[in-house]
Amino acid sequence: MEKEENFSDWFDKVLLEASIVDGRYPVKGFTVYRGWGYRIVRGICCMLEERLEEKGHEPMLFPVVIPEETFEKEAEHIKGFASEVFWITRGGDTELPRKLLLRPTSETAIYPLFKIWIRSHADLPMKMHQTCTIYRYETKATRHLFRAREFLWNEAHTAHASEEEAERQVLEGAGIYSEMYQRLGLSYILLRRPDFDKFHGAVYSIAFDAWNPDGKANQIGTVHNLGDKFAKAFEITYENENGDQQLVYQTCYGFGVGRVLAGIIAQHGDDHGLVLPPEVAPLQVVIVPIPYKGYEESLKAYCTDLLQSLQKAGIRSTLDDSDKMRPGEKFYHWEMLGVPLRLEVGPREMERRTSTLVRRDTLKRTSVLSAELIPCIQALLNELTENLQRRSKETLEHSIREAQTLEDVRTGLDERRMVKVNWCGDENCALQIKEEIGGEIRGYRFDINEEPKGPCIVCGRKAEKIVYVSRTY
Amino acid sequence: MEKEENFSDWFDKVLLEASIVDGRYPVKGFTVYRGWGYRIVRGICCMLEERLEEKGHEPMLFPVVIPEETFEKEAEHIKGFASEVFWITRGGDTELPRKLLLRPTSETAIYPLFKIWIRSHADLPMKMHQTCTIYRYETKATRHLFRAREFLWNEAHTAHASEEEAERQVLEGAGIYSEMYQRLGLSYILLRRPDFDKFHGAVYSIAFDAWNPDGKANQIGTVHNLGDKFAKAFEITYENENGDQQLVYQTCYGFGVGRVLAGIIAQHGDDHGLVLPPEVAPLQVVIVPIPYKGYEESLKAYCTDLLQSLQKAGIRSTLDDSDKMRPGEKFYHWEMLGVPLRLEVGPREMERRTSTLVRRDTLKRTSVLSAELIPCIQALLNELTENLQRRSKETLEHSIREAQTLEDVRTGLDERRMVKVNWCGDENCALQIKEEIGGEIRGYRFDINEEPKGPCIVCGRKAEKIVYVSRTY
Repeated sequence: MEKEENFSDWFDKVLLEASIVDGRYPVKGFTVYRGWGYRIVRGICCMLEERLEEKGHEPMLFPVVIPEETFEKEAEHIKGFASEVFWITRGGDTELPRKLLLRPTSETAIYPLFKIWIRSHADLPMKMHQTCTIYRYETKATRHLFRAREFLWNEAHTAHASEEEAERQVLEGAGIYSEMYQRLGLSYILLRRPDFDKFHGAVYSIAFDAWNPDGKANQIGTVHNLGDKFAKAFEITYENENGDQQLVYQTCYGFGVGRVLAGIIAQHGDDHGLVLPPEVAPLQVVIVPIPYKGYEESLKAYCTDLLQSLQKAGIRSTLDDSDKMRPGEKFYHWEMLGVPLRLEVGPREMERRTSTLVRRDTLKRTSVLSAELIPCIQALLNELTENLQRRSKETLEHSIREAQTLEDVRTGLDERRMVKVNWCGDENCALQIKEEIGGEIRGYRFDINEEPKGPCIVCGRKAEKIVYVSRTY
Repeated sequence: MEKEENFSDWFDKVLLEASIVDGRYPVKGFTVYRGWGYRIVRGICCMLEERLEEKGHEPMLFPVVIPEETFEKEAEHIKGFASEVFWITRGGDTELPRKLLLRPTSETAIYPLFKIWIRSHADLPMKMHQTCTIYRYETKATRHLFRAREFLWNEAHTAHASEEEAERQVLEGAGIYSEMYQRLGLSYILLRRPDFDKFHGAVYSIAFDAWNPDGKANQIGTVHNLGDKFAKAFEITYENENGDQQLVYQTCYGFGVGRVLAGIIAQHGDDHGLVLPPEVAPLQVVIVPIPYKGYEESLKAYCTDLLQSLQKAGIRSTLDDSDKMRPGEKFYHWEMLGVPLRLEVGPREMERRTSTLVRRDTLKRTSVLSAELIPCIQALLNELTENLQRRSKETLEHSIREAQTLEDVRTGLDERRMVKVNWCGDENCALQIKEEIGGEIRGYRFDINEEPKGPCIVCGRKAEKIVYVSRTY
């Protein structure tokens, strides 16, 4: 199955064969995380949580249900989400006195408690995060990991004494996410979403769009400046140093754990299967003995020694010495799972006190002296991460093109690219692109300033921004 | 606030002051895990998951929703749980074509996939686990951590080729849980539940009842032998070595993470607050400098050095050098949070190259040479765990009494004890105890054999078992 030829089938095959998720759960849009997939997402979550906590976010866990009247407090928020929430109306045989909904995101669950917790400026900034599942009654077609009705994410929520502090927090949040994606080798563009596409209830939203081989944008994270809108709705105030009650300023940001996993599969995978970034690979090295008659016992002992020294050095490793598969089948199996390095050891390696290392990203082989194995593996794992970063960044750069006409945009999208166009800022023009070509204006660059070079691609009026257009899930 | 005098108020105070959970979420039975509480439960989960995975259980994550028709497949299961499930009936503005329910436990979510995954004897045993929240529309009074409508647990599910293997798995499951409780210093009795109180759909259930200062049993874990009942309902078969299709035998077991946290607070806590078992304490050591004019800088440097050497040795530690609190207030604060060891360092300690160690369990002080600090802390952490185990076991033993009359039972329960009685095995007699005295027959010992010493305490007929009676949440 070739990734380039038919991404969609390739992706589904990898999900199944690498035990990532199982799509046969009997409810549309709900997916089962299987062992290997779950271990990877657990690794991603740990890495993110550790960093968020180093930066002062307290871990918490809020309930999955939100009462209707709390959900309705912020007008834009409810307007935006009402059509896509799941409603719980009964408990056992009884109609519930108050309807509950499954969180589509947790602002309205968390902020009533912020109101209680925040009393004075000494309580600020307040920064928390939680890893949880959220629920959206998607009416669009669902797609495993990319667009589901239940999805795993981490959300952070902060409250501050001033607008400036909230603004700085947006940058801190975006910085933490950038660092995560970097460590996972993912490349993306960071966009400020057009106003018509911002988070419901936000002042503005920025978002990380990862490239995808099929050309559809994969939104792997978002950061929102909420201003004092939710503070007003939930009456979150603090006593400032003069003794006056003042509204807080808030931010929130969400990291799509399932979509990040999708991005890892999509950006790094190849025709052999997954290629995992070493930091979140459940196993970083697999040792495969190449058996030879008469050497069974000594080979086993040699490999067991190797395994122990790897584990002692903190390298996540396993020894695949089962006799159910031939070495070639084992290679195939562990390549599919994306384990970064394979160590092949046969009688010849044993005699020479060497082993053969095979990198998953390039499939290149090197012979290494056992005495130098540990530092060599550590260096290769770093190199592998750097190679994933470099490859992925090159693909991103290659996949962006500029367009001066709607026809050019169509061609670009058909070539599975993101397309840069000049835009006047009018939602009607965005709508026209969507209706005629099926591409969406995803926003303008947040990290760099790009000046428009001509008139709006749709109406010909003065352009305000260079924006990026792509197809989406 | 004294724990012995008024357990209930003491418990609520600790939950709030130690930032364990916040009970002010505006939906009955749903609680917010705050920072310190969440860090502890995350530690408990990691410890359990690691052990389950060492024993071959694959981590997974199944959806929170179960479709009605799948839920109804096993007759006893649906009968038992139907009255306490939350129903999702709407998505946005539309009535759902099929009602969904929030998992009250995940057998009916998981077993349709077991049916797909299990093909031949080579797929067996199949062992998985997941950490997740479950939902029960409790009609009884709810109580934070002890009895909630949303609660955090880990559930394991296994399938086997034979009844004997399933039986052995029950023991493995119970063994893993016992080890966990041991490491957390919790004491409990392991009971086989009477048939009228077994898990809906099980052949039999065993359960870990932890003692609680108010005398109410705290069920912290259960292990169920499901026989082939669910296999029949979900048609889970495998091809045996003769090529015949055969039903699998199953077990499942649940570890109540929130209730284990409640048990830790209840069994180990004292009038100063929490006392945390070192293995799951988010911080194991807090360093509190005792400032003295003229020594500020040198003290800070000395404490920072200590902190670094502790962290380097893998001891979770912090330095509380804020100037917002006086040392005495800091002691109070960290004692409330249950941090196992406190290191006090003032100018005198600094000059003598020592520090003063204070154990949270006994509050005893020792002076230690800095050069011996690390091994001394490691030894003390172990001693502290052993002391919690010993104290908790003694309390358990002290809290059990035998009773020959119903009046004796009442007295025992009023004294907040578990009471051992002879029982004929008739559910009516159990009912009578419950109605007259408010105590429940929790079952007979699974780990040891206790022969009845007289007639049934209620009806005077021949007794079949010695059973334990206690009040419950």
